[in-house]
Order: sequence, then C-alpha cells, then structure tokens
Amino acid sequence: MRVLALLDGTLADPETPLIRVDDLGLMRGDGIFETVLVVDGKPRELGPHFDRLVRSAAMLDLPTPDRAAFDRATQAVIDAWTGGSEMALKWVYTRGIEGGDGTPTGFALGLEIAEKVKRQRAEGIAAITLERGGDQDLAKRAPWLLLGAKTLSYAVNMAGLREADRRGAAEVIFTTSDDFVLEGPTSTLVAATGKTLRTPPTGLGILPGTTQAALFRAAEREGWAVKTEPLRIAELKEADGLFLASSVRKVTRIHTLDGEQLADSTELHGELTRLYNSEY
Amino acid sequence: MRVLALLDGTLADPETPLIRVDDLGLMRGDGIFETVLVVDGKPRELGPHFDRLVRSAAMLDLPTPDRAAFDRATQAVIDAWTGGSEMALKWVYTRGIEGGDGTPTGFALGLEIAEKVKRQRAEGIAAITLERGGDQDLAKRAPWLLLGAKTLSYAVNMAGLREADRRGAAEVIFTTSDDFVLEGPTSTLVAATGKTLRTPPTGLGILPGTTQAALFRAAEREGWAVKTEPLRIAELKEADGLFLASSVRKVTRIHTLDGEQLADSTELHGELTRLYNSEY
Repeated sequence: MRVLALLDGTLADPETPLIRVDDLGLMRGDGIFETVLVVDGKPRELGPHFDRLVRSAAMLDLPTPDRAAFDRATQAVIDAWTGGSEMALKWVYTRGIEGGDGTPTGFALGLEIAEKVKRQRAEGIAAITLERGGDQDLAKRAPWLLLGAKTLSYAVNMAGLREADRRGAAEVIFTTSDDFVLEGPTSTLVAATGKTLRTPPTGLGILPGTTQAALFRAAEREGWAVKTEPLRIAELKEADGLFLASSVRKVTRIHTLDGEQLADSTELHGELTRLYNSEY
Repeated sequence: MRVLALLDGTLADPETPLIRVDDLGLMRGDGIFETVLVVDGKPRELGPHFDRLVRSAAMLDLPTPDRAAFDRATQAVIDAWTGGSEMALKWVYTRGIEGGDGTPTGFALGLEIAEKVKRQRAEGIAAITLERGGDQDLAKRAPWLLLGAKTLSYAVNMAGLREADRRGAAEVIFTTSDDFVLEGPTSTLVAATGKTLRTPPTGLGILPGTTQAALFRAAEREGWAVKTEPLRIAELKEADGLFLASSVRKVTRIHTLDGEQLADSTELHGELTRLYNSEY
C-alpha cells in the first residue's frame, strides 16, 4: 500500500497524478528528500531527518522547510496507514514550478518496505566498491557539486546499483579517486574492529547518517569507541565487520566485498542489531 | 504559453498534474530529456536530438525510446502552438513508476524561449569556470557516473548556474580536476582561433552537442577547420572567441571569463551566427 499526504495535512490518492510536468523536481531533479522509518506508528530519528532536510535545503538554496508542515503530513500518513508494521516514509521537497512563484512542492509518501530489503537485513549482502569521481577534498573545494546533499538527482546512485547487480552484488560503496571510502548510494558505511566502530566524515562529501548516528549513540553508551574518520579502501577488508546503515535497511551486514567473501561477522551483526534496537 | 502532448499524440493541459509522486523521474531524477528548438513550426536537428535521446537511454539502461511516439508528440505540440515564432520543445522520458511494470513515462512540452536567453544571444554573457570533479579519464573508467548522458538529475547543473549568478556571471564552463575544459550545464563550448573551431571530445564525459555539430557542419563547408580535441583551461583566454552553443541559446558569445573581459569577438560572433543560420 501507499499513502500520500500533502504539507497541509490532507490525504491524496497516490495513484492520481500530483506533479505538473514543469515541476523542477521532475525537470531538473531539483529538490531534496528524506526517508524515515516508521515502526508501529512511531517514526524513528524524526529530528535528525528533519535537520538533514534543512541542511540539504540550505545546500540547494531552497526555502527552509517548515517543520510543522512536514509533521502534519507525517502524522496524516501514519494515521491512514493500514499496511505492515514497518513503513518507509518519504519526504519530498522540490523547487516548484519552472518560472513559477518559487513555492516548493512538498509531500510525504508512505511505502511498504520491500521484501528484498527485509531479506537483506537478515542474510547480509554482497557489495562492490565504485569510484564516484573526485578526491577527498572535492566537496570542500566545490560546494556547487552538492556532495552530501540528499537531492532528487539520484540517477547516478541508481546506476551504481545496476552496476552492482551486473557484478552479482546488491550494494555499492562509493570511493574517492584517491582511495577513500565514502558511502552507499542510499546508506552509510560502518566498519567494526574490536570494540571500535568507524564511519567516514561528512567533510568528504557524504550524508550524515541518521541510522549510523543512532547506532553510534547506543554503542558509545555501552562502552564502544566510535570514530568518524577517513577510511582507506584497503582498510575495509581488515575490519572485523562491514555494515551499511540506513533507515530502511537498519544495519545490514556486508558478507562479500568486490567478489571476496569477508570474515564471518554474523555474531557482530547480532550485537550491532541489538545496540540499534536498544535505541527504540 | 505551454503546450503538452503525450507519446500517443494526444494533448493534455500542462497545468493539470500528469506525474505520480512515485514516478522514478521525480523520486530519483531517473530519466532523460532533450530540448529541441522549433522555429516557425520547424524542429531543428530532430534526428541528432533523437539519436542523443537513444544514447542517453542506453547509458541509463532504459528501454529504447520509440521514434514514432516522440514524432507524434512533437507534431501535436507544434500543431497546437500559438506562441512565439520560436519554441523550446522538451522531450522527457523517465523510468516510470517505482515498483511498476517498467513502462517509461514520456511526454513533449513546448515552452516559450525566455526573454533573458534572447537578450544573451544578442549581448553575450559572462561565464565562470567551475570544477566538476574527476579527471579527463573518469568517464571512460566509471560509466556508472553517467557522464555524458542527458539525465533528469540536473541539480548540480542548476547549482552551478546559481554559483555563476553569485559571482555576477550568467553561465558556467565545467572543467576537470586536471584542467581540461568540459561543457556548460546545458550547452557545448566552442572556441574559435583564426579560421579554426574547436570543441572538447565526448570521451571526457560530455554531451555530443547538436547545435555545435550544426555549426561545425556549416563552418567546414565554408572552409573552416573544425577540431574535436581536448582544450586546457589556459587555452580559453588565448582564443579569438568563446561561445556556448545549445538549442535555445543558439551560438551565444562569452564576453567575460572568470571576471576578465575577453577580446571583442562581436564580429566573429556575427560570422558564426551567419554560419549557424545557413543550416536552416
């Protein structure tokens, strides 16, 4: 099932077109989004998701999103949801009509979690590394590249996933041209070694992970060391476990990297899942 | 005025929403487009535009666009157009509904040429160079980056134009990290020196220019040398004239680059405009 709500809190039929052809979100991928996990009617990491939406809006020179409006739409979708216990709630916010008055287009859309994602949470995934182009300093040097903004211009992220599929994998870890690890197309990378969790810094031009942050919060509370620091590609295979964190995939284990089977991190995955769950 | 036609050749009201919120063109910028110039009811470079649409579709693993369908939609828009003598005709082709049957969403939309663009054609523009990230070999090394595909994921192209505006310029010339010249966000760079025209090769990860190709055709016929070869940023200021070519802007003269006024190329611009016009 899909449930759609507008920013005024009213529901709309998701199968009835809502978007004009001259909306810049469609014409130019000129807009931003977030995906919030809702479990049993409770949205997770709502504040961090909204903060990130505001951050993306600022990077794109979009009007600041109205928290009350997104809260209204979120609640309307949750109230109308009769699907599974888990829902992926998308917020979308575009630059509006080309040549219009600048009013953004916004909505919230509730979607089922794909069966494939649930299976991957349980079984783990194979991933490949793919160069994203640009070195570790590019994002700071060239803010117009919008690296680290969660924009609607995700054609490359989707192409990365098709490339993974062609190579028999399900996911991608993007890397810089100078061999630093970035992020997945729609996820944050977490590497575990001993009782230390590591994730790359946003200064590399990646999104601040909401699920990764929740995991780190829980881990730190239980005595783990958590580090946000650059990771080289070569370090990936030395870790005890590699994970992709995101709202819908939670903490998913990578069992195979670039065709090579990694050390069994099943137990470690169980521990990180317990930590993640302890936040809710 | 705006005129909208679907791929079956029927007209639709452009102010009535046509696109579902779960269309991947909106959700992921996952689709492609072309902009064709139509003058007095005659589309220019229709074949090259369609070839490029097919090329972009292949790069994105989209179903091959149906020429007859786009011809029908194009003709319907042209027949219904009662606006100015010139029209920008957009073709859009997306991956369709997320989780759907894979049927692409497609349409043709006729738009007026903005007054600003007409003024820029006559008066010329200031441009800035902006790094796009990645070296000259990136596109060949990393096809998943879709460099050289005309996708709907143009948020970065639009951000580049906003950066130009902040710096008092109207246009951008993207460059590689190793100082090669690429293209504009929605145009092709042409440099003229003596009776030679040069433009960078598509192997750098840029679009094959339809207007640039028409200009080169005409120039070659009249005895100019035309070269498709890498150009370094430093070479730009040594040229007798720099131009941005695209369907809607035709051949627009760059009079100022990175804040520095270039040698007066007004006469050269007149000559290139004559060559361009001779094709139609």
